[in-house]
Amino acid sequence: MATPAGLRIEYGNVLTGAVGKTHGLTAAELKRGQAELKEHVRQVERERKQGQHRYRDLPDDKAMLRAVKAAIKRRQPGCENLVVLGIGGSALGNIALQTALNPPLYNLMSRRDRKGPRLFVMDNVDPVQFGNLLDVLGGELKKTVFNVISKSGETAETASEFLIVRDLLARKLGSKGLARQILVTTDPEAGTARSMVEAEGYESLPVPPGVGGRFSVLSAVGLFSAGMCGINISQLMAGAAEMSARCATSVVRRNPAAVLAQILYAYYVRGKRMHVMFPYSYQLKDLADWYRQLWAESLGKCLDRDGQPSVVGPTPINALGATDQHSQVQLYREGPRDKVFIFLQVDKFDRDVKIARRKGTPDTLRYLEGASLGKLLNAEKVATEYALTRSEAPCLTIRFPRINAHTVGQFIMLWEAATTLCGYLLNLNPYDQPAVQMGKDFTYGLMGKTGYEKQARQIARFASAAAGRYSV
Amino acid sequence: MATPAGLRIEYGNVLTGAVGKTHGLTAAELKRGQAELKEHVRQVERERKQGQHRYRDLPDDKAMLRAVKAAIKRRQPGCENLVVLGIGGSALGNIALQTALNPPLYNLMSRRDRKGPRLFVMDNVDPVQFGNLLDVLGGELKKTVFNVISKSGETAETASEFLIVRDLLARKLGSKGLARQILVTTDPEAGTARSMVEAEGYESLPVPPGVGGRFSVLSAVGLFSAGMCGINISQLMAGAAEMSARCATSVVRRNPAAVLAQILYAYYVRGKRMHVMFPYSYQLKDLADWYRQLWAESLGKCLDRDGQPSVVGPTPINALGATDQHSQVQLYREGPRDKVFIFLQVDKFDRDVKIARRKGTPDTLRYLEGASLGKLLNAEKVATEYALTRSEAPCLTIRFPRINAHTVGQFIMLWEAATTLCGYLLNLNPYDQPAVQMGKDFTYGLMGKTGYEKQARQIARFASAAAGRYSV
Repeated sequence: MATPAGLRIEYGNVLTGAVGKTHGLTAAELKRGQAELKEHVRQVERERKQGQHRYRDLPDDKAMLRAVKAAIKRRQPGCENLVVLGIGGSALGNIALQTALNPPLYNLMSRRDRKGPRLFVMDNVDPVQFGNLLDVLGGELKKTVFNVISKSGETAETASEFLIVRDLLARKLGSKGLARQILVTTDPEAGTARSMVEAEGYESLPVPPGVGGRFSVLSAVGLFSAGMCGINISQLMAGAAEMSARCATSVVRRNPAAVLAQILYAYYVRGKRMHVMFPYSYQLKDLADWYRQLWAESLGKCLDRDGQPSVVGPTPINALGATDQHSQVQLYREGPRDKVFIFLQVDKFDRDVKIARRKGTPDTLRYLEGASLGKLLNAEKVATEYALTRSEAPCLTIRFPRINAHTVGQFIMLWEAATTLCGYLLNLNPYDQPAVQMGKDFTYGLMGKTGYEKQARQIARFASAAAGRYSV
Repeated sequence: MATPAGLRIEYGNVLTGAVGKTHGLTAAELKRGQAELKEHVRQVERERKQGQHRYRDLPDDKAMLRAVKAAIKRRQPGCENLVVLGIGGSALGNIALQTALNPPLYNLMSRRDRKGPRLFVMDNVDPVQFGNLLDVLGGELKKTVFNVISKSGETAETASEFLIVRDLLARKLGSKGLARQILVTTDPEAGTARSMVEAEGYESLPVPPGVGGRFSVLSAVGLFSAGMCGINISQLMAGAAEMSARCATSVVRRNPAAVLAQILYAYYVRGKRMHVMFPYSYQLKDLADWYRQLWAESLGKCLDRDGQPSVVGPTPINALGATDQHSQVQLYREGPRDKVFIFLQVDKFDRDVKIARRKGTPDTLRYLEGASLGKLLNAEKVATEYALTRSEAPCLTIRFPRINAHTVGQFIMLWEAATTLCGYLLNLNPYDQPAVQMGKDFTYGLMGKTGYEKQARQIARFASAAAGRYSV
């Protein structure tokens, strides 16, 4: 049972009683699955003692947290803009924390209504987007901190942005000004970014060794920008630590990560390959986007742990309630039964907006008067879930008593731990991403990087073959 | 062949030559499919003459365009904020036009750098989000226009927001002030919102009869907010008209909507049920979100056109290049072969940002110097597409010579016409959404609306059954 302030997963609506025999799981089936999972949970806990699964230990890394807080203390005064240059695991967590724990229109609010600088996470190399950011920063470069995040420093997107900003700052503020406005989060020992830190004198924070990008939000990668913007990162870590402890128990029915992994794995095997995360809260929408990387990149693999061919991979999908009721629910209810739904529900919103009574309101809308938006949003969640179960679509709900740093920390650790366990159930390595390299190599070829001449020739042939022949 | 300034679809990388025999289509297969499609195209054109598929005629509705422009002319002076209250088809198009045709940080730019008021599209009833908007608007209510968009006026989300704003304005500005700040886009003849327009004296614009919400962006629904923010809506309509003409030809290989529908249908039948739209441009990302509603709600059905059971429905997915290379491409390349990829590529960006040369750049990054972000982004697109074809994943590309109102108008009409044709190939009605009603009815039940007492009882039983029993 969860502590009162904790996340709770409700899974009654995946059972046959709720969604029928064809699409439901039986209580007996759940029980059988728990025996297998028990072994995986134990194995993970054994491996942790040998230094594996190091993301689980991040909440206990007090030295790292101190270093991040010290950097924040140094950087916050006079800082009006914080720009994160990072992509993938060096951006999605930062964005998710900001959306979850600061107001939606934070960047538009006046300085006194904000707890920190405006935040811009630039996780792409779109020239229109990046050029527009440089316009908006305009004369405020001296009040802007650029946080470059890259383990190696060789990620083409982040490196390009870094080179542009470095040149701009050096031209506008001189080499001392350049060093002052940049903070690099990178490998503490080696790599291209580390060499730049040493040659050019930037302040730096460590990307933790042994933690992959998509598992790194609870390190300096995600914490610096969050803390700069006034998010309580100690509470975040406390929530994560609490969830990590809950996820260590081999009593599977009490282990939230194990329960999640078990149910989603069971449905994957039964052909429900789309796992739709459906938050009923604007604040949680980018956590669903963060989950999208975690689940896809960890579990989409074509070789098993012994290197044998085995193509697997659930497709994570993010939706948003109530908005996507008016976009996706028609498909979700009447289309193929190839999905599992993971609702996120908030018991108590930080604020609510009442729908006032007023004369002249048409009779057809009277039922709304006196209610509140929060009540309506939660009613829509229950109604949509019920309608989905009537279409025999299995539904889970993760309940947030409130949204705060503590519960968000729990949520992050819950999904990271569930990802590891689901990877073990699927008999794959959840920590690698071998298929990403080929696209990078061909990009190097196209961009003329030394050593990629063969790729340059291959892709030149490909590009010319594709051009124009079959087009309309 | 496309006119020089038009969109072009390249589909060479769905053929066996590019992605192999198992996952590719043969030229002969394409040719056979065209015979069937020819009949559907002809049928659609016949039905248009009988008044069906009316979204196709919106670009020719000069009276509507004049009315929208006149409303914009009246409303623009002194307007600092435009708030759209709408959801689903009354919001996704508005958002997509704004993202495509105004700068990403538009709302943060100074008034003189913008062509119109700040724009806020409120397509949800999240109390934290809505409350924060009211804070930010604060003392500027007199400079704020609220555009309420709902065909019936009974959509619970939009109606709630409307009631809140109406009460606020009446209290702060009096009943005259209230009427002055609101513009209602609704059914020209009947319905709850129409009755409010007449009783309370709001200005209004028409939701066009016979055009469903998800096909309505090229009407007053989408045009008013776009025009208010300085988007050239005449050019948008001209682009749409041009594409509508291209999509009328029964020479299928010259009809872009028919080619799209044919290929996506062929892959759906062959088990590739996820249709991933993958723009390599920040500006196009919300058009991919708009497509998500259009494709899902139109094609996800459990009855065919004769009312016989037939469960179908591709799941549209939106991704974003280059960002999602670092999130989804591992799954896309190594996971199950259940996806088709629809890239959006921009030949010439409106601006580019050069990566300057500077001394001290590490050798490993030298290859980037002298290039530009636009060049890099397009190189990554080609590299990713090539890597996907090496995994035998079929890829289409829709090329934008540039992003402007003309090509965006083309894009919208292209997908609307393709949706109709794909619906015909799947033998379903692309214009209804019967499964959405049940969730609405249960929401009414939970909210205590008169006439929904039975639903209230049913859902009370459901909610209590779900509570707590299976949870962790």
